[in-house]
Amino acid sequence: MNDRRPSSDPAARAAQLADAAGTGDRRSLARLLTAVENRTPVAEHALRRLYPRAGAAHLVGITGPPGAGKSTLVAALIAELRRADRTVAVVAVDPSSPITGGALLGDRVRMQAYASDDGVFIRSMASRGHAGGLAATSTAAAAVLAAAGFDIVLLETVGTGQSEVEVAAAADTTVVLEAPEMGDEVQAIKAGLLEVADIVVVNKGDRPGAQRTAAQLRAMLSPSGGRDPTDPARPAPKRPDVLVTTASTGEGIPELLAVLDRERAHGAGGANQAARRARAEAQIRAVLVERLWDRLARPGHQSVAAEAIDAVAAHDLDPYAAADRLLAELGTQPDPGPAEEQP
Amino acid sequence: MNDRRPSSDPAARAAQLADAAGTGDRRSLARLLTAVENRTPVAEHALRRLYPRAGAAHLVGITGPPGAGKSTLVAALIAELRRADRTVAVVAVDPSSPITGGALLGDRVRMQAYASDDGVFIRSMASRGHAGGLAATSTAAAAVLAAAGFDIVLLETVGTGQSEVEVAAAADTTVVLEAPEMGDEVQAIKAGLLEVADIVVVNKGDRPGAQRTAAQLRAMLSPSGGRDPTDPARPAPKRPDVLVTTASTGEGIPELLAVLDRERAHGAGGANQAARRARAEAQIRAVLVERLWDRLARPGHQSVAAEAIDAVAAHDLDPYAAADRLLAELGTQPDPGPAEEQP
Repeated sequence: MNDRRPSSDPAARAAQLADAAGTGDRRSLARLLTAVENRTPVAEHALRRLYPRAGAAHLVGITGPPGAGKSTLVAALIAELRRADRTVAVVAVDPSSPITGGALLGDRVRMQAYASDDGVFIRSMASRGHAGGLAATSTAAAAVLAAAGFDIVLLETVGTGQSEVEVAAAADTTVVLEAPEMGDEVQAIKAGLLEVADIVVVNKGDRPGAQRTAAQLRAMLSPSGGRDPTDPARPAPKRPDVLVTTASTGEGIPELLAVLDRERAHGAGGANQAARRARAEAQIRAVLVERLWDRLARPGHQSVAAEAIDAVAAHDLDPYAAADRLLAELGTQPDPGPAEEQP
Repeated sequence: MNDRRPSSDPAARAAQLADAAGTGDRRSLARLLTAVENRTPVAEHALRRLYPRAGAAHLVGITGPPGAGKSTLVAALIAELRRADRTVAVVAVDPSSPITGGALLGDRVRMQAYASDDGVFIRSMASRGHAGGLAATSTAAAAVLAAAGFDIVLLETVGTGQSEVEVAAAADTTVVLEAPEMGDEVQAIKAGLLEVADIVVVNKGDRPGAQRTAAQLRAMLSPSGGRDPTDPARPAPKRPDVLVTTASTGEGIPELLAVLDRERAHGAGGANQAARRARAEAQIRAVLVERLWDRLARPGHQSVAAEAIDAVAAHDLDPYAAADRLLAELGTQPDPGPAEEQP
């Protein structure tokens, strides 16, 4: 039992949790994800240890407006994957509040059917309070789950904000869900999402208007319809598949999984390289700013940082001057000489 | 005419535009906002020039789920402010896409009644593609409008994502809009927003259920209902006012403005200081990471940065190691010695 006692050293604790998670210990996995969400020192050590193994899973973003049926689709995809004996993890970015206890719980309850199935792991994350950004946190959580050996990691978000688009865009493959006959404003929100979609799914296919909505989307996404009206010469970057599903009955789910697998095979050839680089860049940027901020929180710099923030808040100093002052405080040259410009 | 010719020097151009915008030249103001949105060198110079004057306006965030009537409420607030001869600027973060041309245009058209009124300025911004983050860009735009002398700057966002919550939280006063009788999932989204609300408005007050929704919200936000169920000992941080309006008829709008003014007067005494510091910190952080990234894009460092991104994308390097490598590349000490820890 002795070697299972939690270590108080973050690096040793991370090694314990990461190694246990890698052999299927769900409690260790859950603890690692909590560490990732809270950005504890354990999280950094564990992510560093797990990162080399994190490239194997297919990372699928699933997003769309409220009411399109994302959770039902995720449940249907899980069932389909399990029928084929494939493992799946879900990171659900849950917009519900700790104050009200999470009104989306009903959707999650449906997934508790898999509580005793080691091939399924579901984790809800708050959509707020991620210092390094929601995309950075959920990408790190997905990396932990990928390293733990799940074949597919689904990242489910409500697709209406910038950060949700970032989360969706950080996936290898992005599925945007729509429901037929939504109001005008929801249609507008949808438009921004369509730009990051690899696959568009019109769910609730048993409702009137589903096929018409799919046809409208196909027309909108066709080579002419997809062009930027402000610059018609610029071609549309891609043309996503448009599928119709009825997640509540499973209708269309095998077809969706087939398209996902095809995208994965296609992406392995290099088409997903841009998404992987963008994800890597976002992760590095998030760590960079946290590293600087951590250093500014140390006793030697803390008062300078606090004074800079106060001065900007009082409009006595602009944010650019403040940032340059803090970079100088940390010993970086704000304006490197021309010698540094040489390759 | 000679001195009105646009300068090709960013600093001189910024001075031209900032000074003209400060004397009420709307075209210069519009150009400055475009520069802010595109993060051009002109934007930085202009923001630095304008920042000392940017603290005077009352910055009000207005957010809520799609369909709650945000644009109608903003239009009603504008009308009420103009009746009192007060000036107002609006930054509307518009989720519509360049691809479809902006389906929310109908709401904006209503505001064109003010196209020839110098006391009103309305600007829509895309909700995507802001390198420094949506909150940083819209806060900078609000600072430009505040410096241009508007009494109130309204920041209108669709309140469902993390970045929208950040935008709302960056305001001096945050108004969260609800509509009566919304579905369960929308209620859940609302919950996250309520935490940042200074004022909650149930709009569409002429619909059945409006007063009941307001009563439910008041109960939810009451001292006991507002506690964190995961930690009942922690008191609710604040208790926002709950108002009922019918923005389409103007019902309740004078009352809302009175509460806004009361919040402003109250905030001047220090209650808004936390919001101002959080806004300042977010702005400084956004500039910090951009400064580092700009330096990494220079010829001397570019290949190192590109290699680090490729290595992280290939899972040959973890993001923490990559960030530390890039900080070392820029000449910062990744692990400062204990000497630096001394004050």
